[in-house]
Amino acid sequence: MITKYTYGNPFQTDAVVQKLEVQNGNVPYFTVVKTEEQLQFEYTLENEEKVYGLGENVRGINKRGWIYKSCCADEPNHVEDRTSLYASHNFLVLDGGKEQFGVFFDYPGIITFDVGYTHLNELKITLSEPDADVYVMTGESILDIVKQFRQLIGRSYIPPKWAFGYQQSRWGYMNEDDIREVVKGHREKKIPLESIYMDIDYMERFKDFTVNQERFPDFPEFVKEMKAQHIHLVPIIDAGVKVEEGYDVYEEGIEKGYFCKKENGEYFVAGVWPGKVHFPDVLNKEAREWFGNKYQVLLDQGIEGFWNDMNEPSIFFAQDRMDETFDKIAELKDKNLDLDTFQQFTGLVGSLANNTDDFKKFYHNVDGKMMRHDKVHNLFGYNMTRAAGEAFERLSPEKRILMFSRSSYIGMHRYGGIWTGDNKSWWNHLLLNLRMMPSLNMVGILYTGADIGGFGADATEDLVMRWIQLAMFSPLMRNHSAMGTRKQEVYRFDHVEEFRKIINIRYGLLAYIYSEYMKSALNSEMYFKPLSFVYTDDEFASQVEDQLLVGDSLMIAPVYNQNAKGRYVYLPEEMAMLRFRGVDDYDTEILPAGHHYVEAGLFEMLVFVRPDKILVLTDGGEYADEVDCDHVKALAFVKTKAEYVWYEDDGMGKDYENPDNYGRITIEKGGNCVYTGSREKKIEVKLL
Amino acid sequence: MITKYTYGNPFQTDAVVQKLEVQNGNVPYFTVVKTEEQLQFEYTLENEEKVYGLGENVRGINKRGWIYKSCCADEPNHVEDRTSLYASHNFLVLDGGKEQFGVFFDYPGIITFDVGYTHLNELKITLSEPDADVYVMTGESILDIVKQFRQLIGRSYIPPKWAFGYQQSRWGYMNEDDIREVVKGHREKKIPLESIYMDIDYMERFKDFTVNQERFPDFPEFVKEMKAQHIHLVPIIDAGVKVEEGYDVYEEGIEKGYFCKKENGEYFVAGVWPGKVHFPDVLNKEAREWFGNKYQVLLDQGIEGFWNDMNEPSIFFAQDRMDETFDKIAELKDKNLDLDTFQQFTGLVGSLANNTDDFKKFYHNVDGKMMRHDKVHNLFGYNMTRAAGEAFERLSPEKRILMFSRSSYIGMHRYGGIWTGDNKSWWNHLLLNLRMMPSLNMVGILYTGADIGGFGADATEDLVMRWIQLAMFSPLMRNHSAMGTRKQEVYRFDHVEEFRKIINIRYGLLAYIYSEYMKSALNSEMYFKPLSFVYTDDEFASQVEDQLLVGDSLMIAPVYNQNAKGRYVYLPEEMAMLRFRGVDDYDTEILPAGHHYVEAGLFEMLVFVRPDKILVLTDGGEYADEVDCDHVKALAFVKTKAEYVWYEDDGMGKDYENPDNYGRITIEKGGNCVYTGSREKKIEVKLL
Repeated sequence: MITKYTYGNPFQTDAVVQKLEVQNGNVPYFTVVKTEEQLQFEYTLENEEKVYGLGENVRGINKRGWIYKSCCADEPNHVEDRTSLYASHNFLVLDGGKEQFGVFFDYPGIITFDVGYTHLNELKITLSEPDADVYVMTGESILDIVKQFRQLIGRSYIPPKWAFGYQQSRWGYMNEDDIREVVKGHREKKIPLESIYMDIDYMERFKDFTVNQERFPDFPEFVKEMKAQHIHLVPIIDAGVKVEEGYDVYEEGIEKGYFCKKENGEYFVAGVWPGKVHFPDVLNKEAREWFGNKYQVLLDQGIEGFWNDMNEPSIFFAQDRMDETFDKIAELKDKNLDLDTFQQFTGLVGSLANNTDDFKKFYHNVDGKMMRHDKVHNLFGYNMTRAAGEAFERLSPEKRILMFSRSSYIGMHRYGGIWTGDNKSWWNHLLLNLRMMPSLNMVGILYTGADIGGFGADATEDLVMRWIQLAMFSPLMRNHSAMGTRKQEVYRFDHVEEFRKIINIRYGLLAYIYSEYMKSALNSEMYFKPLSFVYTDDEFASQVEDQLLVGDSLMIAPVYNQNAKGRYVYLPEEMAMLRFRGVDDYDTEILPAGHHYVEAGLFEMLVFVRPDKILVLTDGGEYADEVDCDHVKALAFVKTKAEYVWYEDDGMGKDYENPDNYGRITIEKGGNCVYTGSREKKIEVKLL
Repeated sequence: MITKYTYGNPFQTDAVVQKLEVQNGNVPYFTVVKTEEQLQFEYTLENEEKVYGLGENVRGINKRGWIYKSCCADEPNHVEDRTSLYASHNFLVLDGGKEQFGVFFDYPGIITFDVGYTHLNELKITLSEPDADVYVMTGESILDIVKQFRQLIGRSYIPPKWAFGYQQSRWGYMNEDDIREVVKGHREKKIPLESIYMDIDYMERFKDFTVNQERFPDFPEFVKEMKAQHIHLVPIIDAGVKVEEGYDVYEEGIEKGYFCKKENGEYFVAGVWPGKVHFPDVLNKEAREWFGNKYQVLLDQGIEGFWNDMNEPSIFFAQDRMDETFDKIAELKDKNLDLDTFQQFTGLVGSLANNTDDFKKFYHNVDGKMMRHDKVHNLFGYNMTRAAGEAFERLSPEKRILMFSRSSYIGMHRYGGIWTGDNKSWWNHLLLNLRMMPSLNMVGILYTGADIGGFGADATEDLVMRWIQLAMFSPLMRNHSAMGTRKQEVYRFDHVEEFRKIINIRYGLLAYIYSEYMKSALNSEMYFKPLSFVYTDDEFASQVEDQLLVGDSLMIAPVYNQNAKGRYVYLPEEMAMLRFRGVDDYDTEILPAGHHYVEAGLFEMLVFVRPDKILVLTDGGEYADEVDCDHVKALAFVKTKAEYVWYEDDGMGKDYENPDNYGRITIEKGGNCVYTGSREKKIEVKLL
């Protein structure tokens, strides 16, 4: 059951798609303290109580023990003490206390969640204004609560099937030849590859919706050349529009008044990649439509997917602050720079980027009303991506377009996925990647993944190998890195054949991953689940922060420590362990419930099949279209009877509700296999 | 066996204390490539080969899979991708390949250790000049190799016994009252406390060897007042000497020419806490003696211990570079700050601090010869602390003085310990703390520990609690934090009684910890050992990166994950597990060899007693002097006969070699206990 409470006069974020009546009185469970300035929700945590949720964030699956802040931030250092990443996902589920419930604070300004930080047993949520819609959910289980919430916020975005392939990116592919070289590096070694991402350098001086003519002299032709090799190109789109006379997007935006303005009516100038930019006012419906339509210029050149970046929005500097900073620095010039004055100096420079005070310096035009940015800050990335998503419904009504964003708010999950931003080539970010997945699924973000190998810092071969073994299961499987770091395309390392074999497993798993993704999206379910969400009676399950359930059949337990030759694994029930080296090269072993130390060499990946569940495995391929899903192996750990509901479609259209999309495999204890469905299948049974 | 090889004309670092004959030819094991510019040592690693050592560094106990750089750095972000911390400890042991050996590169300039970073199976060590002494060691075991190396480099520093108590520090205790409040906070709640550290604010405008008269109007009296409460005050000493007319240390240094100079003969000006400073030329023997004698002014006021800081040396900016920077920033003022120009701007500011190019701008006077700093950079902290250590031999010949440093090089271990620098309030730094301890012991640094609770960033109560449970065993046990972070003195949290009980265990363990420390120092042994160093036939032991052996009797396995209620533990042999809540409040259980999941609630600490070994446990106390070591419990896990060699002395004098310092306890299977030694003991046997 979902109950809606309204405080004050909330901004309509369009996060939810169901209209609920407002319940009188205060939200239950919490002590609510409302002042003219803010709204506070206090709650006493039991010792054994778990707090799940908060979407994209640092730390564990159980969020207890830290203070988090919803304030979308361009934060490239995802270290433990950060309080904000790129997103604001104000949804929590409390479990293991007096009552189990979920709560969503639909408020687009800054919120702090003190989850046992100040006091171990105190949860305190503070909204920086007294205006919000608050939804409280109860249900039979966490999964039931999540499902209700997901239905409230609407169906998750569905990408084309090719977007489940292995993808390669790097900030630093400067031109056609750079891209050709990377494609060749994979294709020559038969390492599967689906797409190449184009970071900011493909544009003409970082201007959105332009293509640099020197670097890509005939872009539509190049797109075709890549497609002939089964490679999709995915260009980046930035939030800021370059201030430049003669640049059509800039000039149109100025003419129509579609950029964010300062209080005095002048356009707000921020500094990002191109230098001076204006922000398109994506909270203004007309501006949003205008900006969304701009994507057509690239669709027309054969592009089928995009990633939206810098849309927190990221501000390297506000021009007004920068001007002041130059003056203040000049004043320090002849002083003895001791602790105080030197801190002034570094403080001036350090506070330029993404200064929250600058959020108070510009406004949105929302249905004719000027809205100060800080009050709706967390909606920017959401609405930039919504601009694109709404446009694609008009511009490409039949065919899915790949779209994911860096910044997000609940509601955006209907228009695109996210990647988890600028992580680092750190082993602990491999683990963070795992821990972030379920909380993202809770808020409807299913198409997601972290940059394999890490974006910032230098990767090592073993880190990339281990990371691929985790990212193997994330819908978005992309190797991405930053300019200036060590190149980490897998063919550059020593063990190319091992990389080829491991990445090919992704294509072996593609039928399963796609099927599970689609069912999760269509049924408002989670694709990645913590053990405790499923094994609700298992007292130890909530202690497991380094294993996940993937879809209905599998549990994963990746190795995330350098030089480790294995790891500890907890099995809440008996399972079949697969130790994969390649799609047709694996060991099997049945392990009883309980704690185990399990070996897994650097080139080996562990997968656990649950009892009476089935893993559908193909022979793989070099790209999604090459995968033959009609000749498959069905790996089953049968205790009584194993079943699998298999979703399939053409991977690009939108006929999701067609019953023909569903097939069913049943395998009995002796190995007898029955497939019912509309397709011709050749299924080879492998009993585990 | 140790063999010495010499390349070129090495700088004499005084790292070693034994004179060895130089062997002709190249070092064995390595392919040596010598050019006019550098010296390179290449080695092919076997798949199963482990690389141990490198002292203070990031990452694991086994250093494989990263590139490390010996270049002492003021680096407050100890994240995985850093290559240098504050120290340079160029000692490695290779184990598990064709042959086991140790190697020490006695070279004080910059060295890179590519330990399987570029290629997983390649070790490549590059010295930035072709001049070095290289020592190669073989032996019966890793411990034997380490022992030979430790004998080569001389006996480790020995602090007074009180320095093994629980110590409290924070950058931000501004005056007498701040310190009194912290002492009261502990004493009122009976939380043990041994000392308070005085960070930079006790000085008069950050001038070394001064005391701010407003904040500490009668410092000798205040020192006495603290001593009456059994509290030792430990002031910080910084490397840079403030440039200020009338300041005696500055004026004397100028007069005698004891500061580092530029090529043109002018004094080099760096900016640190006081603003402009000069660096005392601690590589100049006379200057070193002069600077060391300055500590007397504080000894005379009753001080018995110091910590030397900023001695990499840390340079916030070189004044010459700062002057240029102001001009270059001014030039950027009216430009459109796009990617290139904005990166220029941030690059100018970002490259001010600790810029290695500045190391080429100043010189040391070494026996009359001008030595460019970058060629001897890694010796600065060592020689600053040596200045103090050599002075203490003169100024306090009978009584030990506490001394530890931030920066170090091998050789410095004879004059002081180190703390592991400006860590963060991160759970992964708790684990890093554990992993760093053995490699520090390998190079003779025994008096060491990390800042409990983390220096930078905000700590949580559970992090501090878990960290104390690890730091419980480190010789230096100090809670320290930075100005601006959440205060983390334990009495400020909710579970004060649990903190009191846990910290009191340290005093219960004090007899054991001190005894083990002294034996390690006097016998050139390791106090903290990885499991693989002791259980040499155990194939799994080298996989264990989160447990340590502490002294001769104990193994520890701290919990380092937030919200964890236990952890996995590997036992290479049967052991007795103690689950401590307080010094007289613990469970015991015998666990067989192998893998275990073991429960350990937030206020519980696991300790494992090895078979036929003994843990001597006292009742604790509020400070070291209060601990009664003559009435003890002997906890023994007897399989045949348990033995313990117990070192004791007065804890402040230097009569280390007195045979009366040694006692021996033996406990037979039935519990029969015999103590032989020069003291009166009442020993209560607890069979485990």
